[in-house]
Amino acid sequence: MSKKLTIGMFGFGVVGQGLYDIIKTKNLNLEIKKFVIKNADKKRSLPAELFTTDAEAILGDSEINTVVELIDDADAAYALTVRALKSGKNVVSANKKMIATHLEELAAIQQEYGTSLLYEGAVCGSIPIIRNLEEYYDNELLHAVTGIFNGSSNFILSKVFNENQPYADALKEAQDLGFAETDPTLDVGGFDPKYKLTIVAAHAYGINVNPDDVFNIGIDKLGAQDIRFAKEKNFKIKLIPTAREIDQNKVVLYVIPKFISSENILFNVENENNGVLVKAAFADEQFFYGKGAGGHPTGSAVLSDITALRYDYRYEYKKHLNTNALSYSTDHEIKVYLRYEDDSLVEKLGFTKIIERYYAPDFKYVIGTINLKKITDLKSEINKTGNFIAEIA
Amino acid sequence: MSKKLTIGMFGFGVVGQGLYDIIKTKNLNLEIKKFVIKNADKKRSLPAELFTTDAEAILGDSEINTVVELIDDADAAYALTVRALKSGKNVVSANKKMIATHLEELAAIQQEYGTSLLYEGAVCGSIPIIRNLEEYYDNELLHAVTGIFNGSSNFILSKVFNENQPYADALKEAQDLGFAETDPTLDVGGFDPKYKLTIVAAHAYGINVNPDDVFNIGIDKLGAQDIRFAKEKNFKIKLIPTAREIDQNKVVLYVIPKFISSENILFNVENENNGVLVKAAFADEQFFYGKGAGGHPTGSAVLSDITALRYDYRYEYKKHLNTNALSYSTDHEIKVYLRYEDDSLVEKLGFTKIIERYYAPDFKYVIGTINLKKITDLKSEINKTGNFIAEIA
Repeated sequence: MSKKLTIGMFGFGVVGQGLYDIIKTKNLNLEIKKFVIKNADKKRSLPAELFTTDAEAILGDSEINTVVELIDDADAAYALTVRALKSGKNVVSANKKMIATHLEELAAIQQEYGTSLLYEGAVCGSIPIIRNLEEYYDNELLHAVTGIFNGSSNFILSKVFNENQPYADALKEAQDLGFAETDPTLDVGGFDPKYKLTIVAAHAYGINVNPDDVFNIGIDKLGAQDIRFAKEKNFKIKLIPTAREIDQNKVVLYVIPKFISSENILFNVENENNGVLVKAAFADEQFFYGKGAGGHPTGSAVLSDITALRYDYRYEYKKHLNTNALSYSTDHEIKVYLRYEDDSLVEKLGFTKIIERYYAPDFKYVIGTINLKKITDLKSEINKTGNFIAEIA
Repeated sequence: MSKKLTIGMFGFGVVGQGLYDIIKTKNLNLEIKKFVIKNADKKRSLPAELFTTDAEAILGDSEINTVVELIDDADAAYALTVRALKSGKNVVSANKKMIATHLEELAAIQQEYGTSLLYEGAVCGSIPIIRNLEEYYDNELLHAVTGIFNGSSNFILSKVFNENQPYADALKEAQDLGFAETDPTLDVGGFDPKYKLTIVAAHAYGINVNPDDVFNIGIDKLGAQDIRFAKEKNFKIKLIPTAREIDQNKVVLYVIPKFISSENILFNVENENNGVLVKAAFADEQFFYGKGAGGHPTGSAVLSDITALRYDYRYEYKKHLNTNALSYSTDHEIKVYLRYEDDSLVEKLGFTKIIERYYAPDFKYVIGTINLKKITDLKSEINKTGNFIAEIA
């Protein structure tokens, strides 16, 4: 039988409002008792007594057994999540940075205090990818998880490739529509998909990796030449996080733009949509698709997590306990396209193999294989105006 | 920690062989002890002592704690599944007809004997849809589950629509490739997707429905005029099972060909692939995609079920226990296109509303709304050469 949940919610935006509306009309055995908000002066659509700025009203209320955390600040979110879990409350969060950065401690706290932290909403909006990796795919059988994890960059790339918009205009449109922040680096620099990737890697392979140790480079240096090059070869460029098992029980993780051909199902994932491709032994490819950005998709994942807590659902982190555990590696060769300005960069990068090289007055590129370690070490040099790097099959 | 599984397998085809190979090379804490086969004389690629024709070698062996059932005969599969579950063995099956027909009894037996029956491989090959419906989507929040559940008919429809093959040629090609049986009625008549639909409905909405009580009609009467009509309007025709919540806690289920426009993500699900569309409150649409037909996709789902049994995973059938349970209904209006030969059929069907009507010497059709009950009652008359019915948006 389901357990009655009494909920305290931190944050009240689109998601909070939507959750409140749906919980009110459906017979879900849930009640939202209190919202803790930052700004007391803002006009709210719900009765004033539901709101407070005092976190104690939730954290100190023993009747509240479930905390839903929907605030931006990763440090504040971490502090209140830890406090809630330690005081016997279960927590639902959609804060990818907080989860990715503290996953190991958070798993240990859940273990010690017997509480549950769920965070499906932190990765790819409404797509239930964490649950599927946690429950359905054995780590021994998973070859790779890739996909489109960031709605904002994908929206920009769709505008660039399908509507011939210059990158800067597409970014501005994404910002106007609320898909991208004023400082868009988190999205277009590939940090947001990297946080999601490390969470995915934990549930796919049972490894805890600090996001700071994972290579990410974004789409913000994408130039007209790269777009022309891609179009001539019928490619699109997508920003792709990859978790892949390589030899000897090693797993590599990285986020990089990638040339995608039309046979790849990700080719047709456009705008703010997300898609996750799971390659498992024997299964060919599984594809999960849904809306990635925006309040409602995230809200639906948060709601599914809340309803699961009525049955005391928790992530078991079974794969972390596996004796033949996998380990994280950065020693892996990938094939890349690099547009560059300064010839010395190509020398420094020490390509293990150069396959194509092209020179023209306004456009120089090289295609070759290179070690992930090398581009990690030289990231700041690669990531300068005049250069653009992308994986190519 | 995971439990060691000792497996007895009924049937040894592509799936059995593939499972054996993969279990041998991976560190999965699984062992296949015995295969029970029908034909002792067939040459096998594995050591002879692994094979027997005596079911007792599995059912009577107390060391075997897990039975994998991969035989065609639904009655024989039912008998051995019940016997295994009652003797404390867990069972993995991919037999959709057996599961769909006996789901209520099988759930009760699992409850009584504390054993587990998993059957992800029975529905849409490698797509983990049962698990997601069971665990992730609350019945209160599910608007509808639809999709392409039958690889054989979809393969035929792809050939017809994309390569202009006549229906009969496409069917023959599907048969030659092993996608369709010599008697293809199970697939092209919509029975196979109906079995899958009733299993889906059980895990989506917590309702047990006898497949015999569910309307199904297939693509075997599809004619050149229907194809022309669809193409003129930029539709494809797909065979679509639908489970949908309608008013007052009622759920309707039916399988019927449907005109699909290019904005629908199912438009691009081609050949033997399957796709499942889940419409949930607040979540827009979730789409699950993967290979539907063939030994390997089914094998991958069977393998995931087997690995889940190491952790004593079982379906909880929570939604069946829900107090505000939903109930099955056939009282629902749908909008259909009907090509017909005999005018009296249109009279008999009692359309509640006629929207379009067309007459020509070789082609007469009507578009209108009609009650599901009515087409269920008159199915044998509709399903005659000269007529073709399809849902239209």
